Amino acid sequence: MPLNSPSVTMDDVLAARARIGDKIRRTPVLTSSTLDGLVGTRVLLKCENFQRAGVFKARGAFNAVFSLTDAEAGRGVVTSSSGNHAASVSLAARTRGIQATIAMPKIALASKVAAVRRYGGEIVWVEGKDAVPTSEEYDATVARIERETGAATIHPYNDRRTIAGQATCALELLEDHPELDLVLAPVGGGGLLAGTAVSAKALNPKVRVVGCEPAMADDAQQSLRAGRIVPQLAPRTIADGLRTSLGDITFPLIQRGVDDIVTVTEEGILAAMRLAWEVLKIVIEPSGAVPLAALLERRIAVEGKSVGVIVSGGNADLDHLPWIKQP
Amino acid sequence: MPLNSPSVTMDDVLAARARIGDKIRRTPVLTSSTLDGLVGTRVLLKCENFQRAGVFKARGAFNAVFSLTDAEAGRGVVTSSSGNHAASVSLAARTRGIQATIAMPKIALASKVAAVRRYGGEIVWVEGKDAVPTSEEYDATVARIERETGAATIHPYNDRRTIAGQATCALELLEDHPELDLVLAPVGGGGLLAGTAVSAKALNPKVRVVGCEPAMADDAQQSLRAGRIVPQLAPRTIADGLRTSLGDITFPLIQRGVDDIVTVTEEGILAAMRLAWEVLKIVIEPSGAVPLAALLERRIAVEGKSVGVIVSGGNADLDHLPWIKQP
Repeated sequence: MPLNSPSVTMDDVLAARARIGDKIRRTPVLTSSTLDGLVGTRVLLKCENFQRAGVFKARGAFNAVFSLTDAEAGRGVVTSSSGNHAASVSLAARTRGIQATIAMPKIALASKVAAVRRYGGEIVWVEGKDAVPTSEEYDATVARIERETGAATIHPYNDRRTIAGQATCALELLEDHPELDLVLAPVGGGGLLAGTAVSAKALNPKVRVVGCEPAMADDAQQSLRAGRIVPQLAPRTIADGLRTSLGDITFPLIQRGVDDIVTVTEEGILAAMRLAWEVLKIVIEPSGAVPLAALLERRIAVEGKSVGVIVSGGNADLDHLPWIKQP
Repeated sequence: MPLNSPSVTMDDVLAARARIGDKIRRTPVLTSSTLDGLVGTRVLLKCENFQRAGVFKARGAFNAVFSLTDAEAGRGVVTSSSGNHAASVSLAARTRGIQATIAMPKIALASKVAAVRRYGGEIVWVEGKDAVPTSEEYDATVARIERETGAATIHPYNDRRTIAGQATCALELLEDHPELDLVLAPVGGGGLLAGTAVSAKALNPKVRVVGCEPAMADDAQQSLRAGRIVPQLAPRTIADGLRTSLGDITFPLIQRGVDDIVTVTEEGILAAMRLAWEVLKIVIEPSGAVPLAALLERRIAVEGKSVGVIVSGGNADLDHLPWIKQP
């Protein structure tokens, strides 16, 4: 590969779509005049909460699992994830008829553990010094399983196959709505945002791509400003899918194709999540509400623009809603 | 009108659609392979939770409000409702630029009161001997407002214009999915079920139409069996939209076009509601979950059939979820 050429290109995205198009769902785009009124412009919601496994991560997981040769697939797959990637890899592996082993932290939400089990994934608990394992502790567990079983590792974001899969979401959105001026996506490890930038800029170089993250986990914004990966050390945000640091594959793609990264408050995330449930009648999880929060908190200039928002997932914990006080 | 001819015909439904088609939403039909697996056949969900005001009742309210002459409309409209019809009439009236007065019980859900106010409806509280006013107490309040203001009364279900509006829902569903063998709708006062029967039987006389209601408010089933309206005396079901009795306009239409009425348990309603939130990622209210509950509780023979389900509304009270224990 020539120096400075991107590690994931539109060819990779189109290949991913050809590979997974009949296995994942082309998710609907919803609108709401109430939302438009609150935001002050036309907003189109790409509803990945309706994706298989309830989250965009099914795209990357299916692309990675179905990229394997039969010989590779026969030894199974392994990954680490606090939830959504875990369920997605489990579902993709079951669809291919192979074994998935998932390294999860013991603090994972019950609903996400249940999803992994429903899809037939085998869970290995990651032991860490603290309740939230470090990246190194996750990696060590995955490396051990890989060594013992020969399983192929599918990284939740820092993996070209994963990124190309996530990029099919913005591809669909811009095919359906080529008039968009601006596309917003949440950013945690950066797989979705990097993929969104690849697709959006390839289809229309004038589209602005903006990443959205919690102010309490603002490492991606810091990284983009500093020009190097600033690790996320102690994230305490409610947006549990956005607590990770960028990777050395996602970061250069974000530097290349993302115009800005904005941050939102925890209160803003909650308010946006509740608005989606109450007004739009869709169940979305806190991470999926972050771009909506950026619009409602007016962190982005949108006047006169058509705005596409990737609503990344809907795997909320229905037993513990953040706005209901429980005994 | 000749004896025994139906009071609402397909001509009325087509006129309603022409009148309201650009004012209401053509709601999406969602499917889920997980749901299909649980039910044992193909299920198509007509999602009226995405309708304007979050409920199918917008259809009937818009049809009634826009059926008025300018002179009639100028004196405003009045209705009684515990919530969804109230919000729908308020929204329709605001859209036409006229006054809506709503007789509501003090026990109405806060979320439904808020919706009426958001849409500009004026609330008059119905005083009753008990916390839940009787039909007579509602009617007396509405009659007084009608007398004082000259406003036109829009009955929530026992009104030909309301029924013709609700019927546009099944019209859309069967246009989009003519292959359906069976259509399920909840039944309270019977406006939606009567309208569903009119549309479904006109488009395909072989389609079976089945009403679904809580066993704790099984007056429609009793009425259909007895051949006369059996009033609903003390409903205690969580499905707050289905506590009313049938009317003398809805009942004959139901007798003519509905094949059966089945009942479901309160536990079944809760389980179906939660399943919709958790698996389908849609917010639906208890009344909207009743036909899904009928499928999950296996109250209807569906083997080998394509089943359309009208998911009637999504105005759940997010501050009080029935599966979360609160202090």
